[in-house]
Amino acid sequence: MTRHLAPVAVDAMGGDHAPGAIVQGAIDAARKGHPVTLVGPEGVMREELARRHATRSLPIEVQHATEVIDFHDHPGQAMRRKKDNSIRVCFDLVAEGKACAMISAGNSGAVMAGAIFVLGRPKGVERPAIVSVLPGLKGLPLLLDMGANVDCKPIHLVQFGLMGELYSRRVLGVARPSVAILSNGEEEAKGTDLTRAAAGALRGAAIDFRGYCEGRDLLTGDFDVIVTDGFTGNVALKTMEGTAKVIGEHLKRAIRSSLVSSVGGLLAKKALEAMKKRMDWREIGGAPLLGVNGVGFISHGRSDALAIENAIRRAREAARTHFVDELATAVAPAEALLALAQEN
Amino acid sequence: MTRHLAPVAVDAMGGDHAPGAIVQGAIDAARKGHPVTLVGPEGVMREELARRHATRSLPIEVQHATEVIDFHDHPGQAMRRKKDNSIRVCFDLVAEGKACAMISAGNSGAVMAGAIFVLGRPKGVERPAIVSVLPGLKGLPLLLDMGANVDCKPIHLVQFGLMGELYSRRVLGVARPSVAILSNGEEEAKGTDLTRAAAGALRGAAIDFRGYCEGRDLLTGDFDVIVTDGFTGNVALKTMEGTAKVIGEHLKRAIRSSLVSSVGGLLAKKALEAMKKRMDWREIGGAPLLGVNGVGFISHGRSDALAIENAIRRAREAARTHFVDELATAVAPAEALLALAQEN
Repeated sequence: MTRHLAPVAVDAMGGDHAPGAIVQGAIDAARKGHPVTLVGPEGVMREELARRHATRSLPIEVQHATEVIDFHDHPGQAMRRKKDNSIRVCFDLVAEGKACAMISAGNSGAVMAGAIFVLGRPKGVERPAIVSVLPGLKGLPLLLDMGANVDCKPIHLVQFGLMGELYSRRVLGVARPSVAILSNGEEEAKGTDLTRAAAGALRGAAIDFRGYCEGRDLLTGDFDVIVTDGFTGNVALKTMEGTAKVIGEHLKRAIRSSLVSSVGGLLAKKALEAMKKRMDWREIGGAPLLGVNGVGFISHGRSDALAIENAIRRAREAARTHFVDELATAVAPAEALLALAQEN
Repeated sequence: MTRHLAPVAVDAMGGDHAPGAIVQGAIDAARKGHPVTLVGPEGVMREELARRHATRSLPIEVQHATEVIDFHDHPGQAMRRKKDNSIRVCFDLVAEGKACAMISAGNSGAVMAGAIFVLGRPKGVERPAIVSVLPGLKGLPLLLDMGANVDCKPIHLVQFGLMGELYSRRVLGVARPSVAILSNGEEEAKGTDLTRAAAGALRGAAIDFRGYCEGRDLLTGDFDVIVTDGFTGNVALKTMEGTAKVIGEHLKRAIRSSLVSSVGGLLAKKALEAMKKRMDWREIGGAPLLGVNGVGFISHGRSDALAIENAIRRAREAARTHFVDELATAVAPAEALLALAQEN
């Protein structure tokens, strides 16, 4: 199944724990049979590999890149000025067919800028989105856009809905994904001018569009694809993260204060750990870019080896479906749907 | 301390569990020395009171109101057509000084409409807000607006910041409340045109303004007042609720699946209960209206007796501070701050 697929290009220089954790994650993926190309300064790469046991026989290549974009850099400027940066070289490999996909835990704005600059967009795609894959009570709901597009127009939300539906169906294997727009209430009259216009158009699309959903529906898995502008998406995502963290803290305090029995405390902690694992973003591995001519995954800046290993696996799975070839077809009806909705 | 303060007017007909749970909550509050006026059809009120033990000697009055606004009613229309509805009668009592505050677990749009219609706004207040009082890791952070104003202009956010700061300081007793605007990143360049304009103005205000905060900061208590438009506020609030619910569900499953020892399971459940209680919205009692000439609290539609009792207590505490008298002064600098920020 995995034959004939080029390696995943891994930006070895991106993220808080680069290059060590990134190289380790790539090695772990390679050991499980996923070929990778490490991208970064060759000397650093070779040194990291040499430091680790028995890496020579693994399907790991190294691609030299002299420059590094960090979190302080302005995404667009850095992409232009640092021409030989590791993010861009990853995308070059994808564009040349030498990599099936790329992943980076670096500056997410620069990853998006690099994707648009090097890969370009499929015909008709107005704005690529960053997709957050959520740990649903059932399934993996997609939330998009999670931050690339702060100021959105109706056409953008409509396209996010159509592209997200394609991704859920083709990559996650959901037979008929349900799609909803995130709003402040379920009734049609709720929302903003933006959400109402987009909802009107998506109602006419040949997808399972369910109208509005609310913040409380994000993690249930009742909706497979949840569409929003990048500002609201970012707020919602970080609100989920923050709430989970604060609840974990409350729980720790409750265990400490009320459960004097160390056995009970230990067992409660085990339950907490099991839950954390289920909700762990590292298991999900990264946020796919959607709306560019290739497969790219943005991993969390705090990614450790496990997160990187999983991102490599997920990126490879996504590439294998060739969903990118269908993006242009997916977004094609967007403008007509909007025009039709405005007439009615 | 509680002398010379009029009773709290309680809309006995609002909420999923009205009138039973509302009347019970009012009785519980009255037993603790908080005088109340139950508002609703007199026959229903008398019957509810008669059904319960030893209510005659309690500081409970009854105010007749013939009509009820329910969740299906359009807020503004219902307020005009059903002139003798229980929400409006509550506000009449506040306006006449016969009640120090009102609470309702009914149609929140109708409560806001009634507040504006009957009480009116202090001089200079453009838009009243609904404030969500959050269960912070430390303190009680305020999030406003939580849903009354979907389409906001910079002047609205600036006023929310100034009014929220006043409320945190005067009612919650925070000496110097820190204020932030909810955004998609901490850097000044992030956000939308709306948030950037409002942040520019609040930077010049004589309050402890900290710039942007993110979704992950809502529950930490690092910020005392968090300002946002009603759309984003509603999404964030429901995202917190939904995340807490899903985490609780994950935890229950983890306890069931991994902890065969029923003792360990019980102890883990105890920790979960302790945490739930700490995060329980019923303990907080309700969402204050901010920017009208009087004290009103919107309680959750699912309010039980405990939630109502707490809302009565909180509303009374708020009324005692007479913070309403200072709202006009608080918002007075808003326009000048915006003009100054635009010049720079």
